[in-house]
Amino acid sequence: MRHTYTCQVRWSDVDAYGHVNNVTYFEYYQEARIAFLYDLGAWAVEAGSEQLVVARLTVDYRRPILFRAEPFAIDSWVTRIGTSSFDVRSQIRDGHEVLSSAVAVLVGFDSRTARSRPVNADERAVLTSVLEPER
Amino acid sequence: MRHTYTCQVRWSDVDAYGHVNNVTYFEYYQEARIAFLYDLGAWAVEAGSEQLVVARLTVDYRRPILFRAEPFAIDSWVTRIGTSSFDVRSQIRDGHEVLSSAVAVLVGFDSRTARSRPVNADERAVLTSVLEPER
Amino acid sequence: MRHTYTCQVRWSDVDAYGHVNNVTYFEYYQEARIAFLYDLGAWAVEAGSEQLVVARLTVDYRRPILFRAEPFAIDSWVTRIGTSSFDVRSQIRDGHEVLSSAVAVLVGFDSRTARSRPVNADERAVLTSVLEPER
Amino acid sequence: MRHTYTCQVRWSDVDAYGHVNNVTYFEYYQEARIAFLYDLGAWAVEAGSEQLVVARLTVDYRRPILFRAEPFAIDSWVTRIGTSSFDVRSQIRDGHEVLSSAVAVLVGFDSRTARSRPVNADERAVLTSVLEPER
Repeated sequence: MRHTYTCQVRWSDVDAYGHVNNVTYFEYYQEARIAFLYDLGAWAVEAGSEQLVVARLTVDYRRPILFRAEPFAIDSWVTRIGTSSFDVRSQIRDGHEVLSSAVAVLVGFDSRTARSRPVNADERAVLTSVLEPER
Repeated sequence: MRHTYTCQVRWSDVDAYGHVNNVTYFEYYQEARIAFLYDLGAWAVEAGSEQLVVARLTVDYRRPILFRAEPFAIDSWVTRIGTSSFDVRSQIRDGHEVLSSAVAVLVGFDSRTARSRPVNADERAVLTSVLEPER
Repeated sequence: MRHTYTCQVRWSDVDAYGHVNNVTYFEYYQEARIAFLYDLGAWAVEAGSEQLVVARLTVDYRRPILFRAEPFAIDSWVTRIGTSSFDVRSQIRDGHEVLSSAVAVLVGFDSRTARSRPVNADERAVLTSVLEPER
Repeated sequence: MRHTYTCQVRWSDVDAYGHVNNVTYFEYYQEARIAFLYDLGAWAVEAGSEQLVVARLTVDYRRPILFRAEPFAIDSWVTRIGTSSFDVRSQIRDGHEVLSSAVAVLVGFDSRTARSRPVNADERAVLTSVLEPER
């Protein structure tokens, strides 16, 4: 089960080459990931000092994204759940065509101890519901 | 006495026309204004619930700003001190040539009452030291 | 007749105070203005070397904009048509409440001569259709 | 031999958590990489239709970057030169402490054929001068 975020391109996102700037993809993926985790309830279960932080982001560029009124779709799902971290895979799509793909590694973080913490039982439950491991 | 901020253009600031985007000017002016007020000590005197908020910003565009390694200068000074607000005038310069000009109206704000408040005596003292009224 | 643009707040738009950053308002207004002029056909009539450039932007801040999934509305209309320039007034709304207001002065520009030019007859026709002069 | 770029944090780069936003790291790395390739002359040798495009970007987050007047350093060097692509490694430093690390995969691209192309002899020469392979 994949989450779909509707991504509206801003004219300000377009750089001197007339394409959405490489940097802006990270903004798009961040918006999609926040909506994904929020809708999933993984932020509702993040209680008190138990937070989630991004440890690593990787973006693959395939085809340029151009400015247009019609939005693009960004699908997100979980590909790995470890002891204290998990992976979110996202794809920017125009219909069936994948324009870019990304992986974010998120880590459980305890703001009281300022150290990493295990993924808790509530998080594990909701994340497992959208788990789609990669071969 | 005018404050000078050194403004480094980022390639990301440049839009599809090859110029620094209109929107980015506001980012430049914001950076210059924060540095100005900070260096002036107007933020040091802003104590407890007594804050400053921007009520209005106006930017005039004269000449395009192009990407280059050499930074531009942004001069700032105060042109008006009223009862509960004051004006900061700023200019983006390339040597002696003014590329753009702006005015920000800043208002004293009390975060406890969530209402505007008078410019206090400490603020008035430092602001007066850089006052250069416009005809 | 006012044009309405649907403005989706991005989490990236929010600053250290938890509000949409002052600078981002200019991005919102730029997006709304481009959509307005495009839908109006004022960009269709902008032919060859006859362009429109922004000469001045003024933004008034009234109430903070907070991050939320539900979009805000930005209304735009024309308040003045001069010989070689015109004014676009825009407002960011949450239902009936106006959160911010802006005026952009747009100027006809001839890229061949690199000088200002009169608003042409086609532009004047479409702009007049959305003219709502301010008292 | 590593290239060092001086990175000035803007107040606008700081998000609702009071840290430089995750997304902005990509802007920093982009600025550093452009300066690196430009100073290296890898853009001077990029002639006519022979361009370089980013195929993949990975960023590791270690410690938050906070707003301050003093700039940070971003070091860049080449870690791999393949047939039609090469890797640029970059690190954001505060003195000796590494705050974040990144790898960009750049690919030779021919804008005439719209296909990838081999790294040419001139590019290979300058890139080899800053090559520092990873174990």
